[in-house]
Amino acid sequence: MTDENPTEKSFFQEHISQRFNAELEAIHDRVLTMGGLVEQQLGDAVTGMAEAKTELAEKVVTSDYQVNAMEVALDEDCTQILVRRQPTASDLRLVMAVIKTITDLERIGDEAERIGRMALHFLELDRESGPISELGEMGEHVRGMLRGALDAFARMDVEEAVRVAQQDIQADSQYEVIVHRLMDQMMRNPETVPRVMDVMWTARSLERIGDRARNICEYVVYFVRGKNVRHTSFEQMAQEATGDRH
Amino acid sequence: MTDENPTEKSFFQEHISQRFNAELEAIHDRVLTMGGLVEQQLGDAVTGMAEAKTELAEKVVTSDYQVNAMEVALDEDCTQILVRRQPTASDLRLVMAVIKTITDLERIGDEAERIGRMALHFLELDRESGPISELGEMGEHVRGMLRGALDAFARMDVEEAVRVAQQDIQADSQYEVIVHRLMDQMMRNPETVPRVMDVMWTARSLERIGDRARNICEYVVYFVRGKNVRHTSFEQMAQEATGDRH
Repeated sequence: MTDENPTEKSFFQEHISQRFNAELEAIHDRVLTMGGLVEQQLGDAVTGMAEAKTELAEKVVTSDYQVNAMEVALDEDCTQILVRRQPTASDLRLVMAVIKTITDLERIGDEAERIGRMALHFLELDRESGPISELGEMGEHVRGMLRGALDAFARMDVEEAVRVAQQDIQADSQYEVIVHRLMDQMMRNPETVPRVMDVMWTARSLERIGDRARNICEYVVYFVRGKNVRHTSFEQMAQEATGDRH
Repeated sequence: MTDENPTEKSFFQEHISQRFNAELEAIHDRVLTMGGLVEQQLGDAVTGMAEAKTELAEKVVTSDYQVNAMEVALDEDCTQILVRRQPTASDLRLVMAVIKTITDLERIGDEAERIGRMALHFLELDRESGPISELGEMGEHVRGMLRGALDAFARMDVEEAVRVAQQDIQADSQYEVIVHRLMDQMMRNPETVPRVMDVMWTARSLERIGDRARNICEYVVYFVRGKNVRHTSFEQMAQEATGDRH
């Protein structure tokens, strides 16, 4: 049966039980749906902040509950699969990768909500100062990382996972540049401290989101290679990712 | 056998397999060992920052790898238990609570490391400005929350878990006070911006550590009551915690 009717997602084990196949695929799909929503939230939050769009920022703040509800439901369903199916090998790794990924996605949603709140606060203080271009750039980069991490998760593609994880280096350096520029600005124009701090917190949130996108990439490597690459360097991660091919 | 030879940890199920009992107890004990180390790291980091103790800050920065190694080993052992024992009911909830708790503990260790780095940077900029009293106070409060969360986890004590989770309200308000005071200081003395920002980031790290201690409390309620209380209010959490007794 496996050969005649291959599943589209070739990285899944095929089981005698069609139902179990369907359950695992459904869980995997729902993570991607949740990820899509979080990516949207992040995009809206950054645009709200960088381009002074109050209504986008408000939308983010009022819809974080959806992400939270998805996390709780997926977490419960993963636990149910552990109980009913007692998965082993790559099935178990998939369930574990899902449990960890949804935690990071939910926390990215929280950061997006924080950015949304920051934007509302910022726009109250100052509607005149115009778009904040560096923040938009860093926001785009980090959003691209999240999108890439979700793509890697969708196809369980280790090469893509390693590539995206490495983009965190650029996110960190963008962050450093922004922080130094903002500190200069506060020293030169101390009256701007309150509104500059909103931008500072937003940059910090973006930096953390980059870290969490990197975490998701690590879970992809864990699923595919069975290796935990947390706390390893980018080089070690790349080696583990391609290790069994050389 | 259960009655004649009760386990010390009465919240554990007794199993026919003595070995499984021992495995679960060992995992639980190791979480507490890891927690103790993280609490020590946090204490050293805060004292390093608040009382200008360079050697303590250095110690924190150079020993975070131990916490990371404990997380990786415990995570692997939990996965092994899922494979070999295929736990259900409260055994499964224990394993899931451990997997989540060690993630939060590891991230608290990361925040402690950040505080340690901040302290070293801060002490380089300015060795003269003396202890930072509010930071010490907030640090003590948050460290107390972590200790309380670990105590709740040690005894799987839901009342304690709810009590500690509620202390996060005070951590948040201490944080707000510190942030406002620091913003005032930067506006009045713009030349202090760089070193005040180190204190600001430290306060932010402490605030996040409070959130994570609260997460651990939520896992205790999950283990004991089988209810996911993430994204619920303190009132709902307290209700779930005591719910089945009224």
